[in-house]
Amino acid sequence: MHLTILGCHSATPRENNHTSSQLLRIDESLFLIDCGEGTQIQLRKAKVKFFKIKHIFISHLHGDHFYGLVGLISTFRLLGRKEDLNIYGPKGIKEVITLQLKLAKSWTEYSINFHELVSKKSEIIYKDDFLTVKTLPLDHRVYTNGFLFITSSKKRKINLDAIKGIKLEHYHYRQIQQGKSIELDDGTFLDNEDISLEPDSPKKYAYCSDTAFKPDLVPLINGVDLLYHESTFLEKHSELAKITKHSTALQAATIAKDARVKNLMLGHYSNRYGDKEDFYKEASKVFKSVILSEDLKSFSI
Amino acid sequence: MHLTILGCHSATPRENNHTSSQLLRIDESLFLIDCGEGTQIQLRKAKVKFFKIKHIFISHLHGDHFYGLVGLISTFRLLGRKEDLNIYGPKGIKEVITLQLKLAKSWTEYSINFHELVSKKSEIIYKDDFLTVKTLPLDHRVYTNGFLFITSSKKRKINLDAIKGIKLEHYHYRQIQQGKSIELDDGTFLDNEDISLEPDSPKKYAYCSDTAFKPDLVPLINGVDLLYHESTFLEKHSELAKITKHSTALQAATIAKDARVKNLMLGHYSNRYGDKEDFYKEASKVFKSVILSEDLKSFSI
Repeated sequence: MHLTILGCHSATPRENNHTSSQLLRIDESLFLIDCGEGTQIQLRKAKVKFFKIKHIFISHLHGDHFYGLVGLISTFRLLGRKEDLNIYGPKGIKEVITLQLKLAKSWTEYSINFHELVSKKSEIIYKDDFLTVKTLPLDHRVYTNGFLFITSSKKRKINLDAIKGIKLEHYHYRQIQQGKSIELDDGTFLDNEDISLEPDSPKKYAYCSDTAFKPDLVPLINGVDLLYHESTFLEKHSELAKITKHSTALQAATIAKDARVKNLMLGHYSNRYGDKEDFYKEASKVFKSVILSEDLKSFSI
Repeated sequence: MHLTILGCHSATPRENNHTSSQLLRIDESLFLIDCGEGTQIQLRKAKVKFFKIKHIFISHLHGDHFYGLVGLISTFRLLGRKEDLNIYGPKGIKEVITLQLKLAKSWTEYSINFHELVSKKSEIIYKDDFLTVKTLPLDHRVYTNGFLFITSSKKRKINLDAIKGIKLEHYHYRQIQQGKSIELDDGTFLDNEDISLEPDSPKKYAYCSDTAFKPDLVPLINGVDLLYHESTFLEKHSELAKITKHSTALQAATIAKDARVKNLMLGHYSNRYGDKEDFYKEASKVFKSVILSEDLKSFSI
């Protein structure tokens, strides 16, 4: 798993402060999480191949998580996309996207499959051989879900040392990953066990934005490798956090600690704060492995 | 009149190529024309005071002219706007903006007055003592209007040389502009004719984007001081221009010449072209006073 932060600021986009969007790469598949205004420009800056995005997860329908989606859909169309696009988000998302395409008389040539979410309980919304995605019900001013990504890679890893000097075709690599042994044209037999390594251990990434302090998240995200938990505010504005149903850095760290996650990433910063280090300091008081998200920065999970 | 180009590129926004939006300043009033995705960031870069924008004119509901509007409306709300906002655009604009605010449960505290346009004939859509705005029906794939801004300034100009050394209150300046003479507390009488100059001559600015070549625009924009006419393509792609209902630089220049406008500004460039000078060269063959629009560049009219 490889995570690129496209935007990690709240409320309104500014020249150097982009609103929520993240790109999660798992092997060669790209998953987009939230899509604030200008996300498509951030994707270009990050040199992402647009067509590789097949699934987009929208946490809620506030503008700073969502107003870049219709533009991205239009750009896919202009670039000649043919592949289906899957969009997971709150009920209403289909109506608003469809209305905009209708008014523009710009129907896409590719299919958009809307998966509208209404449940207030955690549920599986995507599953293939290598990945399961579950919702994480959050507590915000509108219906909101976080998302939990759990890999279950069955792909064996290629032992690069073992195949050094052996001329293999492209399809051989896939066969090795699938656990197959190979017989070459000259009769050489390569046992899979000799040329591959155990699959990566499963990884878990939890994305939680936006939400008030919500302790019943803890069992759902227990032990994840990385928790992104919003920290719009610092404790000195905890009253404001309460009113607006956001969290403070201290609250995010408390959730991380109680859920015994491996790492906590903070983000969704209010524009009122100049120095992000204050978020780090506040969270570090109760949880030791804190990371500050930063626009266009990438992380391996 | 003072025009700032916020974005002058077509189709999709990129890091350095912003989609259509312009800010027209007339005295202290700001008028926004079109609002592609990311316009609010461009407004910040141009150091515009957001609250001074009271009227927004949307030519048509294609994304590159319109997808930044809902985000700007939201930002106005977050910044605590109280003043009414007037939006002029094609029928449907009210429904799509309202739906998005409803889904976000983010109703604005200020009033939004939607002025939905349906007429296919040129009509007056705004008028005050100093400015008249008329639609310019265009020929595009969806219902589209350009806009003609005509000032009729009755404000006299203050003769700064004549009032040098005289201590005036703030309201005196307004009185001078209104053509009034002034009597100061010490009995000094200042005749308006001695301390003011003739008002500026009326100015006309025509914004025409997006449109196929449309010769019946000519009488509507006759003699304007500045014509912004889209030139998405060069003549070598005239067939594509025809199919997509856009114009070439040569066609824009032909309209400018036939309408005897004072200056022609080109823009809405397709991203396929590297060098904008080719637009200049092509248009200059038939019209002499050609200007290339450029993101974040300002012009006096």
